[in-house]
Amino acid sequence: MVPRYSRPQMEAIWSPATRYKIWFEIEALAAEAMATLGTIPAEAARAIRDKGAPRAAAIGDAEVARIDEIERVTRHDVIAFLTFMAEGIGPEARFMHQGMTSSDVLDTCLAVQMARAADLLIADMDALLAALKARAIEHKTTPTIGRSHGIHAEPTTFGLKLAGHYAEFMRGRERLVAARREIATCAISGPVGTFASVDPRVEAFVAEKLGLAVEPVSTQVIPRDRHAAFFCALAVVASGIERLATEVRHLQRSEVREAEEYFHPGQKGSSAMPHKRNPVLSENLTGLARLVRGYAVPALENVALWHERDISHSSVERVIAPDATIALDFALVRLTGMIEKLTIYPARMTANLESLGGVVHSQKVLLALTQAGMSREDSYAAVQRAAMATWTALGTPDGRSFRDNLLADATVSALLTPTALDTAMDPRRDFAQVDTIFRRVFGDA
Amino acid sequence: MVPRYSRPQMEAIWSPATRYKIWFEIEALAAEAMATLGTIPAEAARAIRDKGAPRAAAIGDAEVARIDEIERVTRHDVIAFLTFMAEGIGPEARFMHQGMTSSDVLDTCLAVQMARAADLLIADMDALLAALKARAIEHKTTPTIGRSHGIHAEPTTFGLKLAGHYAEFMRGRERLVAARREIATCAISGPVGTFASVDPRVEAFVAEKLGLAVEPVSTQVIPRDRHAAFFCALAVVASGIERLATEVRHLQRSEVREAEEYFHPGQKGSSAMPHKRNPVLSENLTGLARLVRGYAVPALENVALWHERDISHSSVERVIAPDATIALDFALVRLTGMIEKLTIYPARMTANLESLGGVVHSQKVLLALTQAGMSREDSYAAVQRAAMATWTALGTPDGRSFRDNLLADATVSALLTPTALDTAMDPRRDFAQVDTIFRRVFGDA
Amino acid sequence: MVPRYSRPQMEAIWSPATRYKIWFEIEALAAEAMATLGTIPAEAARAIRDKGAPRAAAIGDAEVARIDEIERVTRHDVIAFLTFMAEGIGPEARFMHQGMTSSDVLDTCLAVQMARAADLLIADMDALLAALKARAIEHKTTPTIGRSHGIHAEPTTFGLKLAGHYAEFMRGRERLVAARREIATCAISGPVGTFASVDPRVEAFVAEKLGLAVEPVSTQVIPRDRHAAFFCALAVVASGIERLATEVRHLQRSEVREAEEYFHPGQKGSSAMPHKRNPVLSENLTGLARLVRGYAVPALENVALWHERDISHSSVERVIAPDATIALDFALVRLTGMIEKLTIYPARMTANLESLGGVVHSQKVLLALTQAGMSREDSYAAVQRAAMATWTALGTPDGRSFRDNLLADATVSALLTPTALDTAMDPRRDFAQVDTIFRRVFGDA
Amino acid sequence: MVPRYSRPQMEAIWSPATRYKIWFEIEALAAEAMATLGTIPAEAARAIRDKGAPRAAAIGDAEVARIDEIERVTRHDVIAFLTFMAEGIGPEARFMHQGMTSSDVLDTCLAVQMARAADLLIADMDALLAALKARAIEHKTTPTIGRSHGIHAEPTTFGLKLAGHYAEFMRGRERLVAARREIATCAISGPVGTFASVDPRVEAFVAEKLGLAVEPVSTQVIPRDRHAAFFCALAVVASGIERLATEVRHLQRSEVREAEEYFHPGQKGSSAMPHKRNPVLSENLTGLARLVRGYAVPALENVALWHERDISHSSVERVIAPDATIALDFALVRLTGMIEKLTIYPARMTANLESLGGVVHSQKVLLALTQAGMSREDSYAAVQRAAMATWTALGTPDGRSFRDNLLADATVSALLTPTALDTAMDPRRDFAQVDTIFRRVFGDA
Repeated sequence: MVPRYSRPQMEAIWSPATRYKIWFEIEALAAEAMATLGTIPAEAARAIRDKGAPRAAAIGDAEVARIDEIERVTRHDVIAFLTFMAEGIGPEARFMHQGMTSSDVLDTCLAVQMARAADLLIADMDALLAALKARAIEHKTTPTIGRSHGIHAEPTTFGLKLAGHYAEFMRGRERLVAARREIATCAISGPVGTFASVDPRVEAFVAEKLGLAVEPVSTQVIPRDRHAAFFCALAVVASGIERLATEVRHLQRSEVREAEEYFHPGQKGSSAMPHKRNPVLSENLTGLARLVRGYAVPALENVALWHERDISHSSVERVIAPDATIALDFALVRLTGMIEKLTIYPARMTANLESLGGVVHSQKVLLALTQAGMSREDSYAAVQRAAMATWTALGTPDGRSFRDNLLADATVSALLTPTALDTAMDPRRDFAQVDTIFRRVFGDA
Repeated sequence: MVPRYSRPQMEAIWSPATRYKIWFEIEALAAEAMATLGTIPAEAARAIRDKGAPRAAAIGDAEVARIDEIERVTRHDVIAFLTFMAEGIGPEARFMHQGMTSSDVLDTCLAVQMARAADLLIADMDALLAALKARAIEHKTTPTIGRSHGIHAEPTTFGLKLAGHYAEFMRGRERLVAARREIATCAISGPVGTFASVDPRVEAFVAEKLGLAVEPVSTQVIPRDRHAAFFCALAVVASGIERLATEVRHLQRSEVREAEEYFHPGQKGSSAMPHKRNPVLSENLTGLARLVRGYAVPALENVALWHERDISHSSVERVIAPDATIALDFALVRLTGMIEKLTIYPARMTANLESLGGVVHSQKVLLALTQAGMSREDSYAAVQRAAMATWTALGTPDGRSFRDNLLADATVSALLTPTALDTAMDPRRDFAQVDTIFRRVFGDA
Repeated sequence: MVPRYSRPQMEAIWSPATRYKIWFEIEALAAEAMATLGTIPAEAARAIRDKGAPRAAAIGDAEVARIDEIERVTRHDVIAFLTFMAEGIGPEARFMHQGMTSSDVLDTCLAVQMARAADLLIADMDALLAALKARAIEHKTTPTIGRSHGIHAEPTTFGLKLAGHYAEFMRGRERLVAARREIATCAISGPVGTFASVDPRVEAFVAEKLGLAVEPVSTQVIPRDRHAAFFCALAVVASGIERLATEVRHLQRSEVREAEEYFHPGQKGSSAMPHKRNPVLSENLTGLARLVRGYAVPALENVALWHERDISHSSVERVIAPDATIALDFALVRLTGMIEKLTIYPARMTANLESLGGVVHSQKVLLALTQAGMSREDSYAAVQRAAMATWTALGTPDGRSFRDNLLADATVSALLTPTALDTAMDPRRDFAQVDTIFRRVFGDA
Repeated sequence: MVPRYSRPQMEAIWSPATRYKIWFEIEALAAEAMATLGTIPAEAARAIRDKGAPRAAAIGDAEVARIDEIERVTRHDVIAFLTFMAEGIGPEARFMHQGMTSSDVLDTCLAVQMARAADLLIADMDALLAALKARAIEHKTTPTIGRSHGIHAEPTTFGLKLAGHYAEFMRGRERLVAARREIATCAISGPVGTFASVDPRVEAFVAEKLGLAVEPVSTQVIPRDRHAAFFCALAVVASGIERLATEVRHLQRSEVREAEEYFHPGQKGSSAMPHKRNPVLSENLTGLARLVRGYAVPALENVALWHERDISHSSVERVIAPDATIALDFALVRLTGMIEKLTIYPARMTANLESLGGVVHSQKVLLALTQAGMSREDSYAAVQRAAMATWTALGTPDGRSFRDNLLADATVSALLTPTALDTAMDPRRDFAQVDTIFRRVFGDA
C-alpha cells in the first residue's frame, strides 16, 4: 500500500522482519515439541532456541537483504531463511523444519499476521463505534429531515442517522471477529497434510503457544476459503464506510450544508478557488472502500487451488493481505477522526426540514383521512394534490403552505377541522420512538 | 436464471405469486397487530384477513398480469398490489398498510424469501456433505498420490482428499447459517424508520409470526450490509464448489484417469469425436461458481445507499437474489449427484502413485539422512541428485529406481544401509494419521 | 434477465428458436461449401437446405421442447439438434456437420448473436446521443453552477454538462463498435482447430455469408479474450450511464431541484408519502449499471480455458451474454426516454448559482490580484478570507456579499478598484468558450 | 506494488520525483503559452522555466519530503508543490498556474504517466510476441495431442498451440495501443472545464508539446471512462497471461511432462521434498493475473463521479495505476523469460499422443463411415463402441488398439477395408493445414 494510506502499526505486521521473526518462532516451537516427543535431540531444540532467538530478533534491513540474496540462488524463500538461520545456529540447525513443509511455516505465519491485523482492525472499529455513539447521543434529538431517493421524506434526528451507522459497524465488527476466528488456525502437517513425517502433537503444541486453533484437515496449505471469507468481511466493512462517507458528502453539499468536515487552519480547498471547503476525507474514504472491495475478487479466485495446493494464491496474498488490511485500518482511523471533528449545523437542518412548506407530513394526513373514513385511494389523491400544489409554488408569490392547501380542499376540510389537521401533523410524533430505537442500538446505558 | 440451471423448488421462492402472498401475509399480520393496539378497527383486520386471504391464495398468472397492469399507471409496485387487494377486500382495505411504507413490505418479504432460499441451500449442503462423507469413508484408505503444483508430492488417500472438501463445505454451511440469521430481520418502521405512524409493537408482532428478528434500526430499508454479507457467503461456497470441480476435472484427464464422472447410456461426449467422455458437469460447475462469485460485486456496491435509502439496490436484487440462489442451488445439487456417482479407479491411482520410481518418498530419506548426522543442506543435495537422476531417466532403458540411485550414492550409503533406507521409505508412515484426521473431521462416529 | 428489464427486440436475439435457426444456417452454408468442394454430394447439400430450411424456420416452443427431450438422452445440445433436423431431412442428413465440431456451430452462432446484440446496442446509443445532443443544444447557454466535491465551484451551462456526457457516450459507442468487430468471427476448424477433417474454405465461405471475419487460429473454440473485451466494453458504457443517472439524482434532490424526471399522470411516488416525486428511473439505472459491470468479472475469468478448450465458459455465457446485453439495452432506452422528457428548471439553476453571495467567482479575483502584483500566496489568503466571511454569514442579518467583503479588505482595495473588481468578476467570462467546446464535441453542424 | 513484483523501469514512472517533474513541465509549458498570448509577462514565463527547471530536475528524496511537509499544512498536494517551486523561482512564481486548477496538472500528468506505462507494456508485449513466435516456429510441426475438457481430442502441433497464444497477445497489444491513445489527453480548462480564466490555446500548446491530444470536453477532470477502459485492457491481457500460464502448468504435471519451466542450478523446488520441480513461475503468473483483473473493478466504479468531479477516484488511482501497470509489466517480462527458456519434451508429447490406442482418430472414422453410406447416428454408435472398448481395456492384457476394435466390428468392416480405414486415420491429415494457419497468424514471413 502506498505510504499515504499506511499507518506504521499495521505496516509493521506485514514487514519482512516481522514475518521472519514469526517463522523462527514457529520453527523453534516445533523443534521444542519434537524434542519432547523424542523426534529430535533435546540439545538441538535448545540450540535452535538459544542461538536462533537472538539471530531472529536482530533481523533488520541488512539481514533481510542477506536472505533475499540466498533466495536468488535457491529460488525458494523458506529454504533461504533456513539457510540464513543455520549460519547462526550451526550443525543442530539440521533438526529444524524436520518433517515439515514450507507451507507449514508460511500458512501458520500468515494466520498469525492476519489475526494480528484483525485485532488492530477490531480496535479501530471500537474507536469508531465510540465516536459514533458519542455523536449519536449528542444529537439524539437534533431534528433533521430524513430523505429517501434524495427527496425529503419525513423528519428524523441526526442521532438516529448515526445510530444506524453504529449498528451497521457493530455488525461489521462481529463479522470481523468471526473472520478472525476462522483465519486463526495452525497447520503443521507436512507436504500433503498427512503428518507422514511430523507428529500431530507438534501441530497441537505450536498452535496452542501461538494462540491458534488446529487446522482439522490441511493439504499442505490451510484451505483458502478461510482467507476468502476474511477478505469478504473486510469488503463489507469497507462498504459501510462508504455509506457513512457518502452521507457526509451529501450533508456538506453547498445546497444542504448540514454538516462539514473540520477545515484546518492553513488548509486550502482548491488551488484555483480560494472559497472551497470540500469533503475530501469522505471522498477519499469512498475511494478506499472501492479498493478494499476490489481485493475480495482475487481472494475468492484463490480458493480453487489445484489438488493438494498450487501456489497461485501466494502472489495475490503477498499484495492484498497487507494492502487490504492497511487500507482498511487507515480508512477506519480517518473515518473516526472525521466523525469526532465533524461540524454539525442544527440550524441548517431545521431550515432544510421546513423548506418544503410542510409537505413532509403528508403521510400523517393520509392516515387521518383514511381514519376519518375516506378510501385509501381518494385520500392519497387529495393529499398528493395539495402536496404538489405546495411544492410547485414553493418560493413564488402564490406559494401556500401544505396545511393551507389541504384546508382549501373541500374533500379534506369536510373530514378534518384545522385542529384535527394540526393534531395529525404534530411533529412530536416523529420523535416519539427515538428512545426505543436508541435502547435497541445502545442498550439501556 | 435460465431454465437450464434452475430447479423448481428454488424458482418457486422467487415467483411473483410467492412474493405477493408474502406481501399479503405481512399486511394482514400488521393489520391484526394494529387492531389489537386499537389503531384500526378489529373488523377491518378481520375483513383484510378473511377476504384477503383467499384472494391472495388465488394469485396466479392472470392476477399477476392484472397487478402489472395497475402498476403501469401507478408506476409503483406496492401501490398496485394494494389496489388489487382493495378490489377484493372492499372499504376496509383503507386500513391496510396504515402508517407503513412500501419498504416495510418489500424488505420484510425479501428477508422471508432469502431465509427460505438459505434453508434450501443449507439442505442442499447437508446432502452434499452426506455424499462427501460416504465417499470419504468408502475411500478412507485408498492410496493416491498427493500433488502440489500439479507435481507428485507424497502419498495420501482419496478419502483424505474428500475429507478436506467436506470440512470446507462444513465451514461454508456455518457461514450460510450465520448469513441466514443476519438476513432474517423484519422492519415495519415507516418512511424513515422512526415509527412516526406505526407502533413498534406492530413490527414485533409481524416479526415473531414470520420467524424473523426485529431490525434494531432501519431507515426505511433494512440495511444492505446484511444482504452483502449473504451474497459473499454464497460466493465463498461457490468457490469451494469450484475447488472440488477442479479436482475432478484433473482426475479425469486422459493422462490421470483416476476418477470419472458417470457416463450415461446414450450420452455423447462430442459431436465430432465419438471417443470422448468429458468432465462436463465439473466444468459446468466451474462456470456456475464464476457466476455466483460475480454477483457478490454488485451486492457490495449496494450497501452505500444515499441517506435513509435510495432504490438503486432494487434492480440489482431483483436479478441477483434469484439468480445467485438458483444457480447455487442447482450447482450444489449437481455436485452432490456427481460425487455420488463418481467412478473412482483405485488401480489407476496406484499406478500413478508408483509411476515416478519412488521419488515421492524423498522427504523421508532427507529426514533419515539428517537424523544420521548429515547437514540439512548436504542431505537435500544428495536426495535431490538421486531424485533428478531417477526422474530424468524415467521410462528409458537406463532408468533406475530412486532407491537404487540413492544406494549408488556413496554419501548416502555411508549413512544408510539398504534396510535403513527401506525403513525410512516405508509407505505405511504416509497413512498412519488418517484415523486422526478423520476423527477431527467426522468425529468419532 | 427478468422480464421487467427486458425488451423483446433484444430478448429475441437470445431465444432458443433464434439460436437453432442460426445453427441451421451455419450447417446449411457449411454443407453448401463442402458440396462445392466435392467433400459431400451436391444433392446432400441441396436436401439439407431444401428440407432443412422450412423445418428450421418452423421451430417454435414445441420444437424446442422436442430438442430438449432428445438432449436429455444424448446430454449434448448440438447432437440433439442434429438428430432433430435429421428426422426431417432424412438420410442425407448424415452429410451435415461433416468434419465439424460442436463449437464450430456454437461459437459461430454466439458471434452472430453478439454482433446482432451489439448492433442493437449501437442503435440504442445513437438514439441516446441524439437525445443528449438535442437537450445540450437546447440548454447550451442555460447558466448553472458547476460543482466539484459537491461544492459550488464556478458557473457552467447545463448544455456543457450534457455535452460532456455526449462525448463520453460517443467514446463508449466507438468502443462498442470495436468490440463488435472483434467478436464477429467465424470458426469452422474442427475438434482442435487444425482443419483435419474440414477444409478452411468452408470456414471462409460461411464467414462471408454470415458477415463475419475468419478466426485466424482457433482451438476448437473462438478465443475468449474477444468475449471478455466485449463485456468490458459493456461495463464501461454502463458506468457512463451511472454517471449521468447520478447527475440527475443530484439535480432532483429536494435542496437542488434543478431538474426532475418526468412524473406521469397517475404516478405515485411512495405508498406512504403522497408528496414524493422520486428520481426512480435514475436510481434504477444506477443499479442496472452495477449489474452490467458485475458481469465483466466472470467474463474475464472465462479467458483462461484449459488446453484447446474446456467448457466452463459455457454456463457463464448462457447467462451473461443475454443478461448483460438485455440489461444494457433496457438501460440505454430508459435513459434516452428519461433525458428526452427530463424537466429542467433554469430558474432554480440561477437561484442556486447566486445563492452563495458570489464566492463562486473567487478564482477570477485571485488572478486579478496576482496580476496586480500581489504574491500568489497573499492573494489566496485574502480571497479565502473574504470568501469564508461571506459563506459563514450566509442568510444571517450580518451577511455581506463576497464583493463587499473583498472591498472591505484593505489589501484588496489597495490593488483593485470596485470597477476593476467587477470587471474581474464579470460572469460573461464563464461562458466565453462554450462555442469552442460545442464545436469540439458536436462539430460545426 | 511489493518490490518482489516490481521492475525499476516501471516503478520509476510512478515515483513522486517523476510526478513532480511532469507537474513542473506542465506548469512551465502553460506559462510559456500564456506569455505568448500576453496573459502573463514574458519574463515571468522565462523565470519559471529558467529558475524552475533546475529546481524540478533536482527533486530527490529530500525535496519530496519538503513538499510533503508543506502539504501537511495546506492539505493540498498541488498547492504544496507550487509553494515549493515558488521558494526557488521567486515573485514571478505568482504567474504560475494562472487560471488553472489542480486537476489540470494532476490529470494531464496522469495521462503522461499512463502513456509511458503503456509504452513500456507494449514493448514488453513485443518481446513476448517475439519469444512466442520463435518457439512457435521452432515447434511448428512438433506433434502433440490437442485436448478439450482435459481429454485427448485430436493431434495438433505444439507450434499451433503457441500460435494461438501469439494471436491472442497480438489482439491484447492492439487493445493496449487503443487504450493508450484514449488515455493520452491533456486538459487545461480550469475549475469546471469552461476555460473561464485560461485560454484554450494554452491547452493546445501544452498538449502538443507533451504528445497528447486535447481533451474535447473536461469538467475539471479528464473523464474516467478513459481510465476504466485502460484498466479493462490490462485485465484482458492479464487473462491471456493466465491462459498461457495454465497451459504450462498442465504440461508440466507429473503425468504429462510435455514441457517444464527451466530449473536453475541451485534451485530448490520444495523445502520438504528434494525431488520437486514445480511450475512456480506459471503459478505465480496465475496469481498476478488475478490481481490485475481485480484492479479493473474499482476502476469501473471510478467513472460515476459526482457533477463536475469528486475526488473519490484519486485514492483508487494512487494505488491501482502503479500497482496494475507494475504487476502487468513484471508478469509480461517473467512470462517472456519463461517461454524463452521453457524445456519442451517432444518425445513425451508423442508418447502421450499415442497412449490411448488410437482413439483420438475417431472423428476421421466417423466421417469415413458416413461417406460410405452409414447414417450419422449409426456411425457414431459404432465408433463410440470401438473407442470405449479400447479405452476401457487400455493397459490390460485384453487391450486392443482402436483400429483392431473397429475392424472386429462387422458393421464397420462391411464398409471399410483395413486399407480404407488406415487411409481414413492417416495422421498426416491432422497437420495438413498448419501452414495455412501459420500464414494467417504470422503472415508470409
